Amino acid sequence: MTKFEVLILGNSSATPMYGRHPTSQVLNFNEQLFLIDCGEGTQMQLFRYGIKGSRISHIFISHLHGDHYLGLVGLLSSQHLVGRQRELHLYGPPALKEIIDLQFKHSDTRLRYPLVFHPTNQYLPEVIFETTHLSVRSFPLRHRIACTGFRFDEKVGSASLKKEQIEKLNIPVPYLRLLKKGIDYVADDGTVYRAKDLTNPPPRPRSYGYCSDTVMNEDYFEAISEVDLLYHEATFLHDRVERAKETFHTTCLEAAQVAQTVGAKKLLLGHFSARYKDLQPLLDESRAVFPHTELSEEGKWFLV
Amino acid sequence: MTKFEVLILGNSSATPMYGRHPTSQVLNFNEQLFLIDCGEGTQMQLFRYGIKGSRISHIFISHLHGDHYLGLVGLLSSQHLVGRQRELHLYGPPALKEIIDLQFKHSDTRLRYPLVFHPTNQYLPEVIFETTHLSVRSFPLRHRIACTGFRFDEKVGSASLKKEQIEKLNIPVPYLRLLKKGIDYVADDGTVYRAKDLTNPPPRPRSYGYCSDTVMNEDYFEAISEVDLLYHEATFLHDRVERAKETFHTTCLEAAQVAQTVGAKKLLLGHFSARYKDLQPLLDESRAVFPHTELSEEGKWFLV
Repeated sequence: MTKFEVLILGNSSATPMYGRHPTSQVLNFNEQLFLIDCGEGTQMQLFRYGIKGSRISHIFISHLHGDHYLGLVGLLSSQHLVGRQRELHLYGPPALKEIIDLQFKHSDTRLRYPLVFHPTNQYLPEVIFETTHLSVRSFPLRHRIACTGFRFDEKVGSASLKKEQIEKLNIPVPYLRLLKKGIDYVADDGTVYRAKDLTNPPPRPRSYGYCSDTVMNEDYFEAISEVDLLYHEATFLHDRVERAKETFHTTCLEAAQVAQTVGAKKLLLGHFSARYKDLQPLLDESRAVFPHTELSEEGKWFLV
Repeated sequence: MTKFEVLILGNSSATPMYGRHPTSQVLNFNEQLFLIDCGEGTQMQLFRYGIKGSRISHIFISHLHGDHYLGLVGLLSSQHLVGRQRELHLYGPPALKEIIDLQFKHSDTRLRYPLVFHPTNQYLPEVIFETTHLSVRSFPLRHRIACTGFRFDEKVGSASLKKEQIEKLNIPVPYLRLLKKGIDYVADDGTVYRAKDLTNPPPRPRSYGYCSDTVMNEDYFEAISEVDLLYHEATFLHDRVERAKETFHTTCLEAAQVAQTVGAKKLLLGHFSARYKDLQPLLDESRAVFPHTELSEEGKWFLV
């Protein structure tokens, strides 16, 4: 099965403490690496967990609060210094380009590699990246400033041949590919070999939803409908729901309700307030509503 | 004796590796804390080594290469979030203000505390901060972009009274303060009590010189003349002196020569290239010329 998993580099909200780091994740889809948010210290965290920055092809920035992007200029500069030549695609709010350009202007940095910037749309969901095997969408979240989530969808793969049965039938090789596409084979003697009998259906495509930062509201539920793994910010325990609303954040209880409502299979909590040194109560609160919850732990890979 | 020491938060040059961090230091002078440069991750390093950001009153940024300032916006934001109200003074190249303002504009951050910006002069040495006990000067270095070093000078203190002798003499209290200032006391009977006999001279004032980043050249030698502790970048071993010159950096051998030439008492090397995992050869190279050399080790305090 295609690799589809996410490494947590940072699980802290805006004031990093207790050795926790601001938000950043690496998504590995079939050995292609995507960076999602890039809080301060991301390049050091990548080094710590043995991920070469040169392997990252696309970076997705949700919004322009510092704890989600302040590691970006450092990472882009280091990639320049270590001789990267390969194109890097960057997705984020339009002003991100201005912020990067200003800093590169004053540091007199002219990148040796192409940095291709794609502004995200804060108002509407959009497909922002697509390959044969994967599509990525951004969608609006509701935060103090413009913010988008991201959804990564594996595409439906091919059916696979039932090898043992096929071997007995002497079907010409060119027709095997057609069988995998669901096209029946009719032999010269008129015998019909049905594709559905000779193939296993393709594996169910998986999906990863990333929601950070947002106040809970129904507007983004459709965008993360039935994801296999939902990362959702859970800055506070629910006794601080008023504070969560004021600051456009979500509580652990609410994150669990979101996961349940949208039919997610698993939930990953993150973006923890500096208020909580011990995170167990946050996990407990979510699991009471949605048992398949995990805490996003730095340095740990989670399967989608 | 007044506390005067420096804590290393980061000793790496622009590509942080092996757990090393970009440049940042905390100078403690008589329990007043100054931050010198603020590379990415500085706020996490402060937490790691038990330094409260709220205790920092002044920040000095040498230049606008990312490894010297990319931790600044995160630190300033976190100070805002934890409720700082106390004024913070920031010294650096004029464009630093523009970089900060742009990011705070897009993150919709309005600091709750006064951030007072003081642009540094890249062309001439200047006294940029002064108290009764300390003065700080910036001075030009020669780097790829505008860069200044900083020098911290303790001021000459007061003489102290020789208590045992004073106690026998019955000198009226108001005159004791004059004695400490070097003014003799003439008693009613005409006896002259000489200040120089009744006081110990003030301790020799100490000084700290900070040079990062620069190609070695005589222009800044006077500015760091006879410092007690000289921090000097030492990015490369001397076999890469050509590379050092190209990139406007210094070798370990050159840093030692600087320390020797300016009559520094001790030398602290830093800003190590990612090329060197083992730093012992860098120390050895410098010590061969200037024995009182130390490696700036993260988490370690060095006395000025």
